[in-house]
Amino acid sequence: MAKFNKLPSLSKSPTSWYQEVVVRAQLAEHAPVKGCMVMLPYGNAIWENIKSSLNALIEEHGAENVCFPLLIPYSYLSREKEHVEGFSPEIAVVTHAGGEELSEPLVVRPTSETIIHESMKRWITSYRDLPLRINQWANVMRWEKHPRLFLRTSEFFWQEGHTAHATEEEALAEVSEMTNIYHDYCENYLAVPTLMGRKSEKEKFAGAVESYSIEGLMPDGRALQMGTIHYLGTNFSEMADVCFVNENNEKCYTQMTSWGVSTRLIGAIIMVHGDDKGLKIPPRIAPVQLQFIAVNQDEAVIKCCEQLAADMKKSGLRAKADLRDVRLGVKYNDSELRGIPMCIAIGSKEIESDSVELKLRDGIVRSCKLSELTDKVVYTELNAYHNRLLESANAQLTRMVRKVETADELKQAILDGEMAEMAWCNETDCELQIKEATGASSRNMPLDEIILGDKCTCAWCGKKARKYAFFARAY
Amino acid sequence: MAKFNKLPSLSKSPTSWYQEVVVRAQLAEHAPVKGCMVMLPYGNAIWENIKSSLNALIEEHGAENVCFPLLIPYSYLSREKEHVEGFSPEIAVVTHAGGEELSEPLVVRPTSETIIHESMKRWITSYRDLPLRINQWANVMRWEKHPRLFLRTSEFFWQEGHTAHATEEEALAEVSEMTNIYHDYCENYLAVPTLMGRKSEKEKFAGAVESYSIEGLMPDGRALQMGTIHYLGTNFSEMADVCFVNENNEKCYTQMTSWGVSTRLIGAIIMVHGDDKGLKIPPRIAPVQLQFIAVNQDEAVIKCCEQLAADMKKSGLRAKADLRDVRLGVKYNDSELRGIPMCIAIGSKEIESDSVELKLRDGIVRSCKLSELTDKVVYTELNAYHNRLLESANAQLTRMVRKVETADELKQAILDGEMAEMAWCNETDCELQIKEATGASSRNMPLDEIILGDKCTCAWCGKKARKYAFFARAY
Repeated sequence: MAKFNKLPSLSKSPTSWYQEVVVRAQLAEHAPVKGCMVMLPYGNAIWENIKSSLNALIEEHGAENVCFPLLIPYSYLSREKEHVEGFSPEIAVVTHAGGEELSEPLVVRPTSETIIHESMKRWITSYRDLPLRINQWANVMRWEKHPRLFLRTSEFFWQEGHTAHATEEEALAEVSEMTNIYHDYCENYLAVPTLMGRKSEKEKFAGAVESYSIEGLMPDGRALQMGTIHYLGTNFSEMADVCFVNENNEKCYTQMTSWGVSTRLIGAIIMVHGDDKGLKIPPRIAPVQLQFIAVNQDEAVIKCCEQLAADMKKSGLRAKADLRDVRLGVKYNDSELRGIPMCIAIGSKEIESDSVELKLRDGIVRSCKLSELTDKVVYTELNAYHNRLLESANAQLTRMVRKVETADELKQAILDGEMAEMAWCNETDCELQIKEATGASSRNMPLDEIILGDKCTCAWCGKKARKYAFFARAY
Repeated sequence: MAKFNKLPSLSKSPTSWYQEVVVRAQLAEHAPVKGCMVMLPYGNAIWENIKSSLNALIEEHGAENVCFPLLIPYSYLSREKEHVEGFSPEIAVVTHAGGEELSEPLVVRPTSETIIHESMKRWITSYRDLPLRINQWANVMRWEKHPRLFLRTSEFFWQEGHTAHATEEEALAEVSEMTNIYHDYCENYLAVPTLMGRKSEKEKFAGAVESYSIEGLMPDGRALQMGTIHYLGTNFSEMADVCFVNENNEKCYTQMTSWGVSTRLIGAIIMVHGDDKGLKIPPRIAPVQLQFIAVNQDEAVIKCCEQLAADMKKSGLRAKADLRDVRLGVKYNDSELRGIPMCIAIGSKEIESDSVELKLRDGIVRSCKLSELTDKVVYTELNAYHNRLLESANAQLTRMVRKVETADELKQAILDGEMAEMAWCNETDCELQIKEATGASSRNMPLDEIILGDKCTCAWCGKKARKYAFFARAY
C-alpha cells in the first residue's frame, strides 16, 4: 500500500505534494489517453459518497434524474454563437462510426444544454409544464492541455442540472437557490467554505446571461471554482425554440438555467484539508469513517477488531479493520495518508483494561471504555471532527482574503499567495490588465448588494467602482 | 401523462406494443443522434434501482468500483486480433480534439478490457495481488444500425467487471460464480428466469476463450441475451503483458475474465411481464412500489393520501400519492400503464368504513383495515406479487422451449415462435446453415454436463452430437 518515504512538504512544494498524495493514497492515476484519469477504488468511493449525498439534496430541490446521450450533433452546439466559440477549442469530435465517415460530426458532450433543450422543446407546451427541473450524473469531455488529477482532466465526472421557467424572476430564484444549496453542501459535507458570487463578463459561461459560482481558496492562495450556476435567460430557448403558452395564451420563450459540480470537489477536499502526513477526508463522505487497527496477531485481538467493525457497519457506519501482520507504525501511516477520520487501536491491553483511544485524524484523542464504544459515541466524535475541519478551513479562508485599495496592494496580495477583495469597475479591459500584470483573474462578485459610495473607485484602474470582487490566481 | 387510446395488442403486434409502451410510460425516447436514447426520469429510476441492488451483490462478490476513461487508443484495441475484428464495424472514433487532428485516433469504448488490462499490468506483480476484481458502471458505444430502445442502442449503460486470477481453475470458478449471480439476480429482483449456458464459437465474445450467457425468452419467442460472462484465458494478458510472479518465483500470465449486464435488462422486464394494459415493473426495482389514489378532492381524502404516502416512505417503501383532479379511471390507467405494483384508492367511503383494497397490478385484490395498513402488510403483498410474476414468467419459459430431434422440428419450432432445445454438433458451419434456414442462432449450451450417447446425433446435420443447445431467433 503506502510507501515509507515521506510526502513532499505541503507548504514548501504544494504541487509535488498534491501529485504524490493522490497517487500514494490511491485516489486516481493518469490514464494512457492524455488528460484523462482512472479513478481508483478509494477515489471512486469518495465520488460515490458525494454523488449520493448531493443527489438527495438535488431531488429534494425538485429535479428528476435522467440520462442524455454522450454525443451531440455539432450543429446543435453551433446554434448559440458564444457557446460554440467558448467550447470549440476544447471539444473532442467523432467523425467516423459504424465503419463509415459520418455526414455530420458528433461532439463528445462538453456540457449538455443544447441536446437537453432539444428535448425540452418537445416536453414543454404550456405554463403548466413549468418549472421543469432535470439533472444527470455524467461524464463530459473538455480537452485539457495541462491536466491535473481531479482539478483539470479532459474527461471528468459531474452532475448537470437544467431547468426551464416561465419568468425571469423564477429563473433567478432557481439560480440563487442552487448557489446556496452548493455552498451549504460544501460546508456540511466537505467541510469546505466557499465564496458565493457572480462571475464577470469575461469569466461567465459561454452563452449565459449571468454566471454565478462558489469559489474555494486553496492553501497556496489559488482559487478553485467548485461549482457554477448559470442564468441562461432566453439565449438558448430562442435558438432551440423552447417555448410555452402562458396563462394569457401568449407564446413565450422559456427562461433557463443550468448548474453543475464535478470531480473537482475531490481536488478541493485534498488541498483544503491535507497536511504533510496525507489526506484528511471529511467524515460525511469518507469511504472509511472508522478504522480498527489490530495491534498484534493474537486471535482475541483479531476477533475483537472484526466484531467491532461488523457491529459498527450494522449501525450504518463505514467501518473497517486493518488486520495485516505489519508494524503498527505502518498501519497508522497508511490510515493517516488515506485520511481516515478515526482510528481505534485494539491490543490485548485494550481488551483487558476495557479502555480504548479514539484517535481523530487531526490529532485529537478521546478515551472510552471498550464496552461503552457505540456508534453514537463514534458519530458524536465524527461530527465534532467535521466541525473542527470546517472551522480550521474557515479560519484559513478568512486569513487569506486581503482587502486591497490600490493596484500595488493588489499586486502584493497576489504575490504573497493571497486572494484580494476590492472595489472594482467590473470592466473586461481592466480584468485583462490585472490578469496580465498579476496572473490573477476575477473569481466572483459577492451577492450581497453592498452600496458603493459615489466616490468609490476601482482599486486597479481608478474608474468608478461598480462592485466588490474577489481576485486570485486560479486552478 | 398517458394518452387515452389503447395500446396496440401485445400478442398481435409485439413490436408496436413495445415501441408505444416505452414512450407512453415515459421510460425513454430516441435521441437526435441516431441509435442513442434519452432515459427519462421513470426509466432512469428503474436503472438506478437495478444499479444499486446489483452493485451490492457485486461488492459482496469482492469487486471494487472504479472509473476508467471513455476513450481508448485504437492501438490498444488492435492488440488482440479477434477483439479488434469483432468490434471494428461498431466503433465510434474520435479523430479531432482540442482543435487539432489527433496523431492516433481514439475509440469511444465499446468495452474496456484493453484499457483496464493496461492498468492491471502495473497493479499486478505477485500472486499476492491476485485475485483482482474491479467493476465499473459506465456508458459504452457500439454503433447500431437498427436501434430499439433499451434492447439495441448505440450508446448503452452497463456494468463491466474485470478480474485477474493466478490459475485457470480460479478464473473458471469466477465465471461460474458470476453466471450464477446474474441468473439469481434476474430471478430475485427482476422476476425474470434465464437459461445459463456456454456460447458457441460463433456467438462468443471477440477475443474470449469461452463465453457464457444468461438468456431470457421473450413472449414473441425471441431470445434476449441478458448478461455475458467471458473467460479470456491469457489471450489478453499475453498481448498486454499482464503477468505475476508465482509462489515458485516463476513469471506467469494472469488468467482473466470479464462480465457485464446492461440497460437491456429493462427491455427484458418490459417484454416478459407486460400486458395489453402496459408495464408490470417488478416490485423490488420499481421506482414507485405503491401508489395511493385520491378518489376525490375532499380535504380529508387528500390529507389521508399524503399522510399514508409519507408514512410508507419513512418505512423505506417507495410510495407516492396521485392527488390529481382527474377522473378515477385516468389514475388507474396511468398506474397500470406505468406498471406500478400496488395501488390503494382512498375516498371518503374508505376512511369512514376503515377499509381499503390493495390492488396488485396482476389483478389480485386484498382487503385490509385502513388502520391496520402497515409497511409490513405492503411488503408481504409485494413479495407475493414478485413470486407470482416469477412463477408466471417461469411457466411461459417452460411452455415456449420445445425439444426437437430433427431439422424439420427445429424449423417448425422457430416458425411457431418458440425456442428449440436439441442435441447439437457444436460446429460453426452447422450453426450458419441453421441461421440461414430458420433465422435462429444458438443461444447457449446448458452448463449441466449431460452425457450424450455415442449414437446421439445433431438434430440439424446428423453428425455426432456434442452438446445440448438452445436455438432461437434473438434480439
